Amino acid sequence: MSEPGLPPFESIIAGLTARPLARCVVVAPHSVEAIAAVAQVVAEGAVLDLTGDRARIKNLLAEAEVDVSAVRIHDSGDSDTAVDRAVDLIRTGDAEFVVKGSIPTADLLGGLLRQRLPGRSACASHIYVMQLEQFGGRTVLLTDAGVNIEPDLATKAAIVENALQLYSVLSSARPRLAVLSAIEKVSTRIPATLDAAELRLMAERGKLGAVDVDGPMPLDAALFPESAVNKNLAGEVAGQADILLAPDLNSGNLLAKALVGHHAPAMGVVLGAGVPVALPSRGDTVATRRHSFYLASHLTRSAATSPNGCDRE
Amino acid sequence: MSEPGLPPFESIIAGLTARPLARCVVVAPHSVEAIAAVAQVVAEGAVLDLTGDRARIKNLLAEAEVDVSAVRIHDSGDSDTAVDRAVDLIRTGDAEFVVKGSIPTADLLGGLLRQRLPGRSACASHIYVMQLEQFGGRTVLLTDAGVNIEPDLATKAAIVENALQLYSVLSSARPRLAVLSAIEKVSTRIPATLDAAELRLMAERGKLGAVDVDGPMPLDAALFPESAVNKNLAGEVAGQADILLAPDLNSGNLLAKALVGHHAPAMGVVLGAGVPVALPSRGDTVATRRHSFYLASHLTRSAATSPNGCDRE
Repeated sequence: MSEPGLPPFESIIAGLTARPLARCVVVAPHSVEAIAAVAQVVAEGAVLDLTGDRARIKNLLAEAEVDVSAVRIHDSGDSDTAVDRAVDLIRTGDAEFVVKGSIPTADLLGGLLRQRLPGRSACASHIYVMQLEQFGGRTVLLTDAGVNIEPDLATKAAIVENALQLYSVLSSARPRLAVLSAIEKVSTRIPATLDAAELRLMAERGKLGAVDVDGPMPLDAALFPESAVNKNLAGEVAGQADILLAPDLNSGNLLAKALVGHHAPAMGVVLGAGVPVALPSRGDTVATRRHSFYLASHLTRSAATSPNGCDRE
Repeated sequence: MSEPGLPPFESIIAGLTARPLARCVVVAPHSVEAIAAVAQVVAEGAVLDLTGDRARIKNLLAEAEVDVSAVRIHDSGDSDTAVDRAVDLIRTGDAEFVVKGSIPTADLLGGLLRQRLPGRSACASHIYVMQLEQFGGRTVLLTDAGVNIEPDLATKAAIVENALQLYSVLSSARPRLAVLSAIEKVSTRIPATLDAAELRLMAERGKLGAVDVDGPMPLDAALFPESAVNKNLAGEVAGQADILLAPDLNSGNLLAKALVGHHAPAMGVVLGAGVPVALPSRGDTVATRRHSFYLASHLTRSAATSPNGCDRE
């Protein structure tokens, strides 16, 4: 088989954490879990801006014994204000990426997108980096499991663009993207299969950049060479996908949760909002939250353009 | 935590295989994999009817060294005829359940449903029985990952009915059903969350039978008690679901494939078509295919009523 596109998860982490964090604002770190990750990166030398309820944050910092000289709290009572304060820090160059605290994803991204920050791409979308223990340990990107509810074809193309941006900072190999579906046939009764056929055509015509795209295909055909053979799927992508594109938010999210299971290595980030946004889940371990900080930080050096809107969670 | 609803997968298998197979017709066993499962159950004493291309089947049987005195081949060239022959056997009482060979699922189910067999329920739907290695080893049912493309509320209620029928032959405990979604909030922007709220209400009002229903909820909240607590989901279901109801075919199928991974214990069956239909996947092991035979066989003793149609793959 051809060589893997993405390095092993552990070496990605080693690469990410080898450099100090870029300047960062954590929005509404009002939970023990959010502060535990703050404590971790502060102990590693980071200096952070935090926006949210000063009293709550101070209590949580004290409980977690965080060195308060390494954090600046920007008091902002409600979550809208906490997002606005974060945007101020981005505009002045004092913050280069954002970490979600205990604010709902929709509130955070809605606030960021309303501010029309420069450097955002056609669509904000979530990308998981995950190591698939149940699938031979390979590392893949999975998108979009967190932002776009029912993306149309144009939005899917923008989601692909964001995923390729992330991929390019993790690997120099040509990426192989599988457009997922329940079946490998194109059927007018399953619209996601039509999108897959069109994305494949767009890729062949060079509209999606340097990427091999194939689909529609079920998950097993995307990840297992023997399943690809079984389903008569030839080509570069089937059986060795580096990027998995989900049909919609429900399927992406359920798929991500199933693949992560009980804390398989994974981390998530939103690209396209102007600055990278680390988006830990409530169930994430401190290690995963820490990795998300470093992933988003690493991505500050690359950015996309061309604004637009999309149907978000 | 309260006691588990379904027995461990191994003891389900032990229970299923303790009884001889009911009378069975295998439709279009035109692949090495399909015949390998036939060989297995024939070696265990089963007598089977096979419909399909006699010459191909005879060759495959010879290669697999199957005792041909234990099989009756009903020659039927194309797949429509193979299904019609199977229906004839069901109508005369010579077959009590169906096993899919290498015929497409849509052709097999379409053919069976067109024949309006007595005993079918409001909707045919697929149910997986699986042991979730990544989720503490618990056994769950997952539906519908194989038949209904975008089920509406009434179809989801019928899908629940079929799942409860299967559940009831595996466990006498009261089932806990989680209606899955990307989020745990009810949002008009994500229709599956509205269905979840309505199914919950229907269950509370006794419209779905003896079952506790909760949702919408993400996968982790359905399966991990700590995630349920994290997301403020109280009640009987969250964290200890026995039955997972997927939003639609794509999400159900991707979820099933992710949970099964590299051959986790699983088996699938379609209920509601008049007789149980064992529906092995092309990637299934011989063991899984064999288990599907016994599962469908076991279900011949229970049946539902009230015909209707639904939007199938």
